[in-house]
Amino acid sequence: MGEMAECYTELEKAVVILVENFYKYVSKHSLVKNKISKSGFRKMLQRELNHMLTDTGNRKAADKLIQNLDANHDGRISFDEYWTMIGGITSPMANLIRQQECQQEQQGQGSS
Amino acid sequence: MGEMAECYTELEKAVVILVENFYKYVSKHSLVKNKISKSGFRKMLQRELNHMLTDTGNRKAADKLIQNLDANHDGRISFDEYWTMIGGITSPMANLIRQQECQQEQQGQGSS
Repeated sequence: MGEMAECYTELEKAVVILVENFYKYVSKHSLVKNKISKSGFRKMLQRELNHMLTDTGNRKAADKLIQNLDANHDGRISFDEYWTMIGGITSPMANLIRQQECQQEQQGQGSS
Repeated sequence: MGEMAECYTELEKAVVILVENFYKYVSKHSLVKNKISKSGFRKMLQRELNHMLTDTGNRKAADKLIQNLDANHDGRISFDEYWTMIGGITSPMANLIRQQECQQEQQGQGSS
């Protein structure tokens, strides 16, 4: 990250990582610019969200999302669709992620 | 971040930061659990997304989003709404963020 990004907050850096990850998987030879192909999106989920999907038993939800992608005959994923889909994967496990954080904090603090 | 999180990819860590940031602003004394109040969301935008909004002249879009929040009489922001709204702020500037990254990379590589 460059000069500008150094003053960014944690949240802003996280958003930049999500943006960069999108462009990492944008198909370079696509007729449609700034979109990810279905196969690229599948690859992205497997590589970049693998632990999160495995850890929470949330893979079924992801499989369903991918099936819905197959049903979409446009066949390309825009940034908005990418953002929405990661949100759809994250939402049902948001409270779980938070509970894990809380447990870790409690363990760290010991029995005070 | 705990043991589990250490094996997380960059993208997964970024998603966890977005989740943690949501719960940081969830109102503790709210009748409605796991939601952020409108005033809390405004505070969050100002504190956590300030550089991003300023740097890109994207503040108008954020103001419009906040106005739309005011129009929503439910008055509480769920995780899904939070995710969607940050996506709405990010989407119009996604390409800009990417271009800045590219320029920085080119500068870093010199005139090869």
